[in-house]
Amino acid sequence: MPEKRPGSSRLGTEATPPIRLHIENNPAAAPVYHVTPELFHEAIAKRPELAGRIESSFGCDPKQIEKPLREAEVLFIHGRLDATDLAKLAPRLKWIQSTGAGVDKLLPSVPAGVVLTSTSGMHVRKGGEYAMTALLMLNHRVPHFVTAQRASRWDQAFSTPIAGKTVVILGVGAIGSEAARLARRFGMRVLGVSRSATRNPAVERMYGPNELPAVLPQADFLLVTLPLTDETRGMIDRAALELLPAHAGLINLGRGDVIDNAALADKLTKGELSGAVLDVYPQEPLPSSSALWSTPNLIMSPHCGVDDGASYAESALEIFLDNLRRYAAGSKLNNVVDKSRGY
Amino acid sequence: MPEKRPGSSRLGTEATPPIRLHIENNPAAAPVYHVTPELFHEAIAKRPELAGRIESSFGCDPKQIEKPLREAEVLFIHGRLDATDLAKLAPRLKWIQSTGAGVDKLLPSVPAGVVLTSTSGMHVRKGGEYAMTALLMLNHRVPHFVTAQRASRWDQAFSTPIAGKTVVILGVGAIGSEAARLARRFGMRVLGVSRSATRNPAVERMYGPNELPAVLPQADFLLVTLPLTDETRGMIDRAALELLPAHAGLINLGRGDVIDNAALADKLTKGELSGAVLDVYPQEPLPSSSALWSTPNLIMSPHCGVDDGASYAESALEIFLDNLRRYAAGSKLNNVVDKSRGY
Repeated sequence: MPEKRPGSSRLGTEATPPIRLHIENNPAAAPVYHVTPELFHEAIAKRPELAGRIESSFGCDPKQIEKPLREAEVLFIHGRLDATDLAKLAPRLKWIQSTGAGVDKLLPSVPAGVVLTSTSGMHVRKGGEYAMTALLMLNHRVPHFVTAQRASRWDQAFSTPIAGKTVVILGVGAIGSEAARLARRFGMRVLGVSRSATRNPAVERMYGPNELPAVLPQADFLLVTLPLTDETRGMIDRAALELLPAHAGLINLGRGDVIDNAALADKLTKGELSGAVLDVYPQEPLPSSSALWSTPNLIMSPHCGVDDGASYAESALEIFLDNLRRYAAGSKLNNVVDKSRGY
Repeated sequence: MPEKRPGSSRLGTEATPPIRLHIENNPAAAPVYHVTPELFHEAIAKRPELAGRIESSFGCDPKQIEKPLREAEVLFIHGRLDATDLAKLAPRLKWIQSTGAGVDKLLPSVPAGVVLTSTSGMHVRKGGEYAMTALLMLNHRVPHFVTAQRASRWDQAFSTPIAGKTVVILGVGAIGSEAARLARRFGMRVLGVSRSATRNPAVERMYGPNELPAVLPQADFLLVTLPLTDETRGMIDRAALELLPAHAGLINLGRGDVIDNAALADKLTKGELSGAVLDVYPQEPLPSSSALWSTPNLIMSPHCGVDDGASYAESALEIFLDNLRRYAAGSKLNNVVDKSRGY
């Protein structure tokens, strides 16, 4: 929570100082992620109570961010901020809003006194639907088919309906919960693993992170939607992958470094797992030299599976402006990142 | 309908002559399709009223089928029968039950006086689910991703949830109806095209086959589940494909010859359609020399998308034995093919 701003109780009076906001886009990111000045001005014009209180600047070049940071009180930024000493560079900074739900790349740059918020929850519909798509693809052996297709090889594989099969969801957050709901609608059995093991209406049983040996052998499918934190980095290592049945399929919509991708590729190549769908990678964009590209029984989407192409920037902006209203009023912000947990 | 068998009213008496049944498997087909003697004897043992009345023989070699055909009254057969003059070869034959739902390869061999029945309806669950899988894959640009993956290319494509989009289902039979139901559950708009244009609860509006110019331009997705008949052969020709919007995707789970596959490949290559999922082909197995294998934005499954791997032969056998009971009792058979329609 930011400290109460001086003057925030005199909202709308001329004496209230403006909130200095900087919006920084990532020139390497696809246009769908860009919060353009046009989008911002259009959205804030619908909030007259806020519009008069904001002084905004826009940037799309990491090399030129230092100047606006000197004055910024609020920063709305995509993905990452490669500043080595933000406390010094941005002495007035109180709050950073990420355009993304995952903040692993941003978190290391955030000074102790600065609040960080995410857009967690924004990816629910698209992300849940893409998770269900991946479950159905794995169930119906699509990774096998596309691998055979690359070799112009007619190679039948007969599957059965997905009802009654078990998906283990690792990280039952916003996307994981929606995936659980859709999986249940297809008659699947849903098990969950989370730090808190909090009950979820669509999940038959929740497990803690130390119970992988009990839960992974039950998986027909393992769906990973975990954020990257010190605790989750490498959580699905070779030993964890060995706990999965050979007919199982794996999906990663969380972060690439949660999984030992070399071990995964090895098991896919040996037929010790039936298939995988990856959307996230240890390095992004994944270099063309990566062995993953040609790994059999693997379908890869380039980190866009959970992101809605029609409304990403708009949805992130809505979450931000709702938080900005709260900030201006001195209220509690939504989606505040617990820095010790990392999400 | 078969004529009433002599003696069928004296069911169970010793004077009732046995029903001579021949079961012919296809050596080229996957084991999942084989109605083995073990499967048959196990299933018929559960029907004591039938068991004593059947004299069965089994074959799995087209070259040796002539001898059993000489005596057979009932034939249960997979896929096709390359007999040139079945009326002469099988003078006692009254009824052929196909193990499959599509009878296009079998129909030309069936003499005028012989009843042909299919297993239409058997593919509902698996087929409907595979159709929904294909719709979701197309919506989420999976054909684009696997094409980029072949070239080790990071190439993002941002989609939106499938709700509100329109699928046009061409051939609203058993699989098409189940696909419609699932699509509605995902919030899709469903339009249908069928010969009879009969209303279906999951279909917003039905069109006749001559209304393609009105319905195809509305399609975000075109799902083809048509049987192959004189009427449907080549129905989705280049002109029909031209009626689809460039962002549309196409699925064929019916028969390969319903579509002009060369025109489809051409449009996919030019980006005039966004993707396709094919399960059926003009020639099967599709030769490795086919240009389809390397067509961009195309995912191919080798004619097994709608077939349940755990229960194909068992399900076909159940349908057959239910019909066999009807046949023995002189009752109306299920799934009788209308030879003039071809399905």
